[in-house]
This record gives sequence, structure tokens and C-alpha cells, in this order.
Amino acid sequence: MADLQIPSQMTQSTKPLRRVAFIGAGNLATRLALAMQERGFEVMQVWSRTAQSAEVLASLLGCGATTTLADLTPEADLYVFAVSDKALPALLEAMPHRCGLWVHTAGSVGLSVFEACGMARCGVFYPLQTFSKARKPDFARIPIFIEARSAGDLELLREAGLRLSGSVSEATSEQRRQLHLAAVFACNFTNHMYAVAAQLVERSGLPFDALRPLIAETAAKINELTPREAQTGPAIRFDTAVIERHERLLADEPRLQELYHLLSLSIHDFANNQ
Amino acid sequence: MADLQIPSQMTQSTKPLRRVAFIGAGNLATRLALAMQERGFEVMQVWSRTAQSAEVLASLLGCGATTTLADLTPEADLYVFAVSDKALPALLEAMPHRCGLWVHTAGSVGLSVFEACGMARCGVFYPLQTFSKARKPDFARIPIFIEARSAGDLELLREAGLRLSGSVSEATSEQRRQLHLAAVFACNFTNHMYAVAAQLVERSGLPFDALRPLIAETAAKINELTPREAQTGPAIRFDTAVIERHERLLADEPRLQELYHLLSLSIHDFANNQ
Repeated sequence: MADLQIPSQMTQSTKPLRRVAFIGAGNLATRLALAMQERGFEVMQVWSRTAQSAEVLASLLGCGATTTLADLTPEADLYVFAVSDKALPALLEAMPHRCGLWVHTAGSVGLSVFEACGMARCGVFYPLQTFSKARKPDFARIPIFIEARSAGDLELLREAGLRLSGSVSEATSEQRRQLHLAAVFACNFTNHMYAVAAQLVERSGLPFDALRPLIAETAAKINELTPREAQTGPAIRFDTAVIERHERLLADEPRLQELYHLLSLSIHDFANNQ
Repeated sequence: MADLQIPSQMTQSTKPLRRVAFIGAGNLATRLALAMQERGFEVMQVWSRTAQSAEVLASLLGCGATTTLADLTPEADLYVFAVSDKALPALLEAMPHRCGLWVHTAGSVGLSVFEACGMARCGVFYPLQTFSKARKPDFARIPIFIEARSAGDLELLREAGLRLSGSVSEATSEQRRQLHLAAVFACNFTNHMYAVAAQLVERSGLPFDALRPLIAETAAKINELTPREAQTGPAIRFDTAVIERHERLLADEPRLQELYHLLSLSIHDFANNQ
């Protein structure tokens, strides 16, 4: 631990996190910044690589925008890095010295990313949800996973998190990585299943609307049953006649055909390992 | 068309479909029979290959049960074949003569399946939903797709369908096949994504509950956005660092690793064909 080499006044703070600067203006930054402002935080400034993104979010928040890291306010209690995983290390390297607590919001990036820039007050603030600029999520129900270098900062992040959500938990970098991987399946890949389904029904001259009750029920079902109990369809029934017919229907789309095949095999793996 | 060879009194009926016999006692048979009874249909009898299944459903309905096709009541207006696709042809071949309208409920089976048994009054009654015995669905919101050999029977099925649901539409066998294929993606494969996610979070010592708001939001989102607009995550951002890290995390599970890889490629295909 590097803490011993850092003066304690720089690693300890009991000042609540109220004034916030956002580094990033994407989907997560947008929804988190707006939710924080709504819950009484003062969002002071938005930085983004492109002026337009920074200005769009800043105008929603009524705060300042910048594309120059050197112009970032020194007065924030909390600096939220809500950028893509791949952009984060270079950005941290380019950051000027700023007091306050630095956090990132990335599922798959360890707390250790802050080591290179020598920050003692650093942490992670990871809301487990899918964010789109065009849709306001119910933040009160979003699980937030936190991690921090020091116990004091962990408590500050917990307090900040509880202003937004009823569910704030500590998770290690390793747990958060697994959570993020799980979330890719539960959300990103699930949404892709919807996209494939939409393409298939629309091709047959029927509206995507026909699938909405099915999609809603599939999601609602797992509030009563485990996903294993809720599994239905030709793969779990091992109905090879249907599986083969479906694979033939996808003959012109080798990628979807391969996907159908592999997903059916995987459903089988799971059923056999129960 | 074989209609010309069949006496017209056997192909035409305007008698509403009220008295129903169920051939099959699985998830769909169970939920459909209970919903029909609730909406004023008289479910007279349940046949199943196994006595236990027949009796369980018959006792829920308070009607007769049999495992012998020859004992099927001759008095039903509607015979609903709710069995697996692969069981259907042999069952139809073994069926004794019964007047009334015969329908099957299978997404991937054409109306032509009835040709072998020479039935003139035949059709399809396909509720597009996932059914589990343990969960009661809201039938009023389930789209029902119908098809029939004759216009008269199509109208009778429409009337019967509208007693159950606000959404009854005609679909050809070909359209229904595509719908079923789409439903496998939108429901069965989606549920498998939940099962994979559950396994991953539980392995990391966190509860599946952490993913519930994400799953609910992912499904709710597509009521406002198209699935293409709603797509988020490392694959659509082409965040190869995250993708590679996730694939490494799945190193011990080659099937899931392959699935992750293929799903990410497929998300890319879709983004590039927009």
C-alpha cells in the first residue's frame, strides 16, 4: 500500500461529496450527472474530448463545459471519470493535479488504474445499469457498487450512493469484473437477442410489437422462477426437429445460424449440469 | 384443395367453439386450458400420454382425464393439440374420427400437418408467449395467431381468440414459423442469457438479485427505443480491451467463451448493416 508515503491530510477527508466534476459526457455520464443534480449534488463542470458532447450535457445541467483538462475546476469534492475503459488510462495520465476524490465508473477496470497517477484518494462508483441518453432510468432502484483506497472515502462514497439509490454495496475489483461480465450477458447480449428477433419478425411482414408481451413476460418470469426453472423452448425440450427446421430457416445468415446452434448447445450444457 | 371432395356439412359450421378437449397437458396446454375455462369455455377432457400429467391438469380443471385416444369425448366443438412438434404427426395418425374443429398450437408446424389424417376442419391457434405451469400469464395481452382451412373456421377461431385476448391476428404457416424462430431468440435465448449471468454473479459471491433491475430495464427500454437504438456495451463500442478481458475471464468455460465471442461479432454485424 502506498498510503504510508502520502501525507495523511491528503488521504483522509470527512467532507461530504457534494460538488462534482464529470470527466466524460456519454450515456452513463449523462444519466448519472442528471440524477446527481436531481438529488442535490452540485455538478460544477463537464469535460469531454469533443466540445459538442461537453456542451450538450453542460447545457442540460446548466454548468460549465470544457475540452481542456487543465481548465478543470480545482474545487470539486468528487471527480467522476465516466469514459470508456480504453480511454481511461491515458486520461488519468494527462490529468492535472486536483484534490478531491477521483472515481471511475467502469465495471471491468480495477482500482489499480489510479496507481500510475499516484492518486491516494481514489475509488470506484459503479451503477449496474444500462444507460441511454434518451431514457431516464429509475436511479433509486439501481444497485451501486463501490470501492475505495481508504475506509474514509468508502464511507463518503456510500453516503453519496445512498442519496441516489436504495442499494449501495462494496465490491472488490475482481467481483466488479465478474458483475460486468454477467451484465454483458444479462443486458447487452439480451438486447441483441431482441434485435435479432425484431429483424426476423419484420422480415416476415409482422410488426415487432407482436413480440413485446413475450419479451416483457420473459423478464418478469425470473422474478418468480430462477432462470433455470424458467427455461422453455425447443433446445431445453431437445426438440431436434424444430431446432433443425430453425437452423434451415437461417441458412442465408450463417452468423445467426451459428449463433442459434451454439445457444441451443449451451442451453443443453446448463440443463445437464443441474 | 381437398375441400371439394368433402361433404360441405363437414367443412362448414357456425356453431361457436365452447366445448373443448385438450390433447396434451404440458405448460402451454395447462395455461391455455385454465385461461379458456376462466373465460367461459367448457374444458371437457384432458388426454395425455402419461396418466399423471392428464390427471394433474384434469383435477385443476375439474374435468375428465384419459390416456386412451379412443376414449376422447366425441362431443367437443374444439380439439386442441398442445403437444410437442415431434409428437404431433404420430398423434394425429392415431386419432379416432371426431367431428369438431381440430387445431394445433405449434409455432413451427404448418397447417398441412392435418392433411395426412384427412381432416377438413382444421386450424392453428398459436398464442405467442412463454408458458410455465408455475406462473399464470396475463392472457388478455398475449397475441394469438390463427390459421384455418376454411374461412368459417377462421372466424370461429377469431371469436374464440378474442374471448381470451385483445390481440388475435391471422398468420400463414410461413409467417408463424418465422414468428416462432424470432420468439426463440426473444425468449428462450434471452432466458439463457439470464441463466449464464446468474451463474457468473453467483460464482463471484454476489446475489442474482443484483442483476434484476438491469434485466427489467433492458426489457423496458425497448418500449421506447428500438433494440438497435438500445444496444449498449463493449461490443457496440468496439471496446476490444474489455472484450478480450471478458473472454479471458471465461477461459475455463470454452462454450461460454465461444458464445461471448460470437455474440459480440453478431452485434457488430448488426451495427454495420444499419
